Amino acid sequence: MGEFDLIARYFTRKPQRAALGVGDDCALLQPRPGTQLAISSDMLVEGRHFLSTVNPAFLGHKALAVNLSDLAACGAEPLAFTLALSLPQADPAWLEPFSRGLLALADAHGCELVGGDTTRGPLNICITVFGEVPVVAGRSQALLRSGARAGDDLYASGTLGDARLALEVFRGNLSVPEAVFAQARQRMEQPTPRVALGQALRGIATAAVDVSDGLLGDLGHVLAASGVGACIDTSIAIDLIASCADSLGAPGTFSLNQRLAFVLAGGDDYELAFTAPPSAREAVMAAARLTQTAVTRIGRIEPEPGLRLVDARGRLLDETYASFDHFA
Amino acid sequence: MGEFDLIARYFTRKPQRAALGVGDDCALLQPRPGTQLAISSDMLVEGRHFLSTVNPAFLGHKALAVNLSDLAACGAEPLAFTLALSLPQADPAWLEPFSRGLLALADAHGCELVGGDTTRGPLNICITVFGEVPVVAGRSQALLRSGARAGDDLYASGTLGDARLALEVFRGNLSVPEAVFAQARQRMEQPTPRVALGQALRGIATAAVDVSDGLLGDLGHVLAASGVGACIDTSIAIDLIASCADSLGAPGTFSLNQRLAFVLAGGDDYELAFTAPPSAREAVMAAARLTQTAVTRIGRIEPEPGLRLVDARGRLLDETYASFDHFA
Repeated sequence: MGEFDLIARYFTRKPQRAALGVGDDCALLQPRPGTQLAISSDMLVEGRHFLSTVNPAFLGHKALAVNLSDLAACGAEPLAFTLALSLPQADPAWLEPFSRGLLALADAHGCELVGGDTTRGPLNICITVFGEVPVVAGRSQALLRSGARAGDDLYASGTLGDARLALEVFRGNLSVPEAVFAQARQRMEQPTPRVALGQALRGIATAAVDVSDGLLGDLGHVLAASGVGACIDTSIAIDLIASCADSLGAPGTFSLNQRLAFVLAGGDDYELAFTAPPSAREAVMAAARLTQTAVTRIGRIEPEPGLRLVDARGRLLDETYASFDHFA
Repeated sequence: MGEFDLIARYFTRKPQRAALGVGDDCALLQPRPGTQLAISSDMLVEGRHFLSTVNPAFLGHKALAVNLSDLAACGAEPLAFTLALSLPQADPAWLEPFSRGLLALADAHGCELVGGDTTRGPLNICITVFGEVPVVAGRSQALLRSGARAGDDLYASGTLGDARLALEVFRGNLSVPEAVFAQARQRMEQPTPRVALGQALRGIATAAVDVSDGLLGDLGHVLAASGVGACIDTSIAIDLIASCADSLGAPGTFSLNQRLAFVLAGGDDYELAFTAPPSAREAVMAAARLTQTAVTRIGRIEPEPGLRLVDARGRLLDETYASFDHFA
């Protein structure tokens, strides 16, 4: 199968909203009047971001999900994406499920594939995604990292730490009951980008970030950009790991402290961490209900720089948890 | 050096036209009213698109140049780009010249780096570029592959075949005088995207494509999309290879037929092939002069499908020349 057959068979569809899709030198997009274009790129490398044994359908899903998660963190509505793919060979047994998983998530979000590139080389998936953000009275409605203010509440969406728990089981560092692993693995392989929640939080949240490298690290970007600090109640945060729910049975061979580390610094979660003033608590919960997304208030923004962890009684903990850095 | 230091040191600058640049979950772009966004992605893989010994400054230049060439083929004005980079290690001795070469070309075209991704892995450079195309009275002014009509003239910009000649010398398949190799190598390592010419051809050219896989192959996309055929005068085309100019001395150890193969099917040229009606000859030449870009009329579009090669006396040649396919 040649390069152009491969593109035609697995990745070419009729343009929907795009003025021009796959097949020319460029794709053409016409953002709606009164909107701004939000753009993000993420590259996934075999052995670094996924294991060679992963189901290609899950990989197709995840490659787009991690990009949609960036749009969600800006409150953008997905519009389109490009896919650049480096492959060791053009193998239909891989391409068919990969494109199926990818395009199913794309369809679910009305985000069409408008162009890209294919080449032979080590497996590498690079997606650039485009979304629309309204501009109202000359002001962008995008959620930024820089808007958190002292006194704001701090929230996390969904669950945190499960993907890292699954990774540690894959690595042989951890042993857990089957039901725990199944739950965690699903979160690692098929993350859910919080696209609807992100849009529902426009005009409510003061700042937002997507949690990809671990809550503490990504929240750190918000604190730095906003010039503030934060305090997290670990007695609440520790319950954000879904695969350790009591209903799943014994938590396996790891400590409470390790469980907290998964939640705070696990990575690969693709949840939103965001801030909003206490006056917006009702509005935040309404956005959560509207989008059927769990949202948990886990702390507050403070004027003093830095990130503090406290227990249920407000006592300061002195543990530190490293975030994920691709070059550390 | 960590991931965020690396981005800050080599790739972060103040946004110019972008509403938001590097450093949040998404970049924000505001295309001008009355314009459409043209988008293209190209991925460069070590060993496939460049040799490991290449000067990183040239590689930075080329990685953006091949993307700008796609904008040129659409007649788009460069606006911004994202860079996703997979690197074996964060090596300042590579990153400094790479970013310098990349950003010098970006500055020359007013095309700002607005976001991207960095990760550890086999060397892979993925750029997605954004340009603006005017929409006049509801009609996009983009140059497409589908507009060629029987009777149109066929043109090529600049020079063709030099990059392939240099590659064959690197591969040890060819021996040429030093001056010939120097000229060819410069064309391979630092191609010139025909951005100004592409824009000047809006409203003049009926179809355009950028020549990256070889003239015949890329022209074939235009013919297929337009439902036409073409005839190329090889006695004119053969002179498009700059490194074989008489002034450089003996052409080295290859035949006239091999020289023609370089021109017609060499690849890596990043020139424009385009069509325009004979009534537009003056306008084409004016666009060439205005943008100081050589343009050569090499043939014509015909109603019969297929691509025909003729000699100076119009006699049909029966040689075939394969184009470049990354999976063939």
